Amino acid sequence: MSRTLIHNLSISLDGFATGEPQSAEAPFGHAGQRLHEWVFATRFWALQTSSDDATDVGGSVGVDDAFAGRHGLGVGAEIMGAHKFGPPGWQDDPDWRGWWGPDPPFHTPTFVLTHHRRPPMVMEGGTTFHFLDASPTEALATARAAAGGLDVRIGGGPTVVRDFLAARLVDHAHLVQVPVVLGRGVRLWDGLEGLEDDYTVEAVASPSGVTHLTLTLRSDT
Amino acid sequence: MSRTLIHNLSISLDGFATGEPQSAEAPFGHAGQRLHEWVFATRFWALQTSSDDATDVGGSVGVDDAFAGRHGLGVGAEIMGAHKFGPPGWQDDPDWRGWWGPDPPFHTPTFVLTHHRRPPMVMEGGTTFHFLDASPTEALATARAAAGGLDVRIGGGPTVVRDFLAARLVDHAHLVQVPVVLGRGVRLWDGLEGLEDDYTVEAVASPSGVTHLTLTLRSDT
Repeated sequence: MSRTLIHNLSISLDGFATGEPQSAEAPFGHAGQRLHEWVFATRFWALQTSSDDATDVGGSVGVDDAFAGRHGLGVGAEIMGAHKFGPPGWQDDPDWRGWWGPDPPFHTPTFVLTHHRRPPMVMEGGTTFHFLDASPTEALATARAAAGGLDVRIGGGPTVVRDFLAARLVDHAHLVQVPVVLGRGVRLWDGLEGLEDDYTVEAVASPSGVTHLTLTLRSDT
Repeated sequence: MSRTLIHNLSISLDGFATGEPQSAEAPFGHAGQRLHEWVFATRFWALQTSSDDATDVGGSVGVDDAFAGRHGLGVGAEIMGAHKFGPPGWQDDPDWRGWWGPDPPFHTPTFVLTHHRRPPMVMEGGTTFHFLDASPTEALATARAAAGGLDVRIGGGPTVVRDFLAARLVDHAHLVQVPVVLGRGVRLWDGLEGLEDDYTVEAVASPSGVTHLTLTLRSDT
């Protein structure tokens, strides 16, 4: 059974998953990298960013690493929003191929939700970007078909995650609450009143200071 | 050294410390009692609400009880906002004496911040309500003088807590994040961008599902 998942979505204490304003120099606005320092400290991240055959890469191996490492496990496709794919205006730049260089860290078909469609981009390492003007339900059907029986990850940003949660299309969401108060940006929680009626919520605090929140869709929903 | 403390302030995942609208029938608006169920389950609460000599009152004795039980320890005065003292319009009711009956659970001088001053009300059990039209700094000086060397608790609601946190007048704050998404009400975090620059934040998840957040003012602030 192919599931729909959210992994490693970081939010501030006040619920912002990104700061403002977004630009080519500051993908997360005034938040900078503060929401993601927890993952940079993990062995999972060290392995992602090391040469292929390194094993002595360092990094933490506790609960942060355990959660972080689930990012790609069993995932056969990703859906992301236009704000995750590029800075404002990328749609007008025919050469924009995402933030991630020639070998993006997705390694699967990856569907970018945008009103500005363009032909697919085949990247190195198994990632192909597809551009889709579709509702969450339609996009999920398309991604599911491309995932070959594996799970579909909703990759963010927060507005896309919100839309999929609001439609109860997400089976399991992993959020990481970071102890900063951003004050402004895009809030994950807006419009999600009563989410707990349909999702069980588990919290586990990490010695690193972040809190991992897992939301699981109730089977009777 | 007399400290300024916040104890047991419950907030939703999206940061609301109360719902809306507030009324005599619904002190926390649409939130009802959902933000406070965690404390009702503790031995601390059972003892508060039992007859004086009962010891077999039941209730949990884990981390929720440990935090809850600090509510009155070493506290010599409380400051609260007008919204905590009564429903909208209580200022026009000369007979309003708070929500709590003849023996309120404060047992100390208790300062109500309001533009509508009235004479002090001496209640049973050591609580006296004083009505004060003052800035946070002024109110704190008054409460400190009345606390007899003990600590001062900022009792809420969220707008008052926010004001004292924004002014960095709080030494130690204990918040309890409850796994519900309220969607509307009064947000604790508004206007507190960058709070983490001056406060260290610790999180501990309870098996009950809530997460206890403790904020401690850095000594160099």
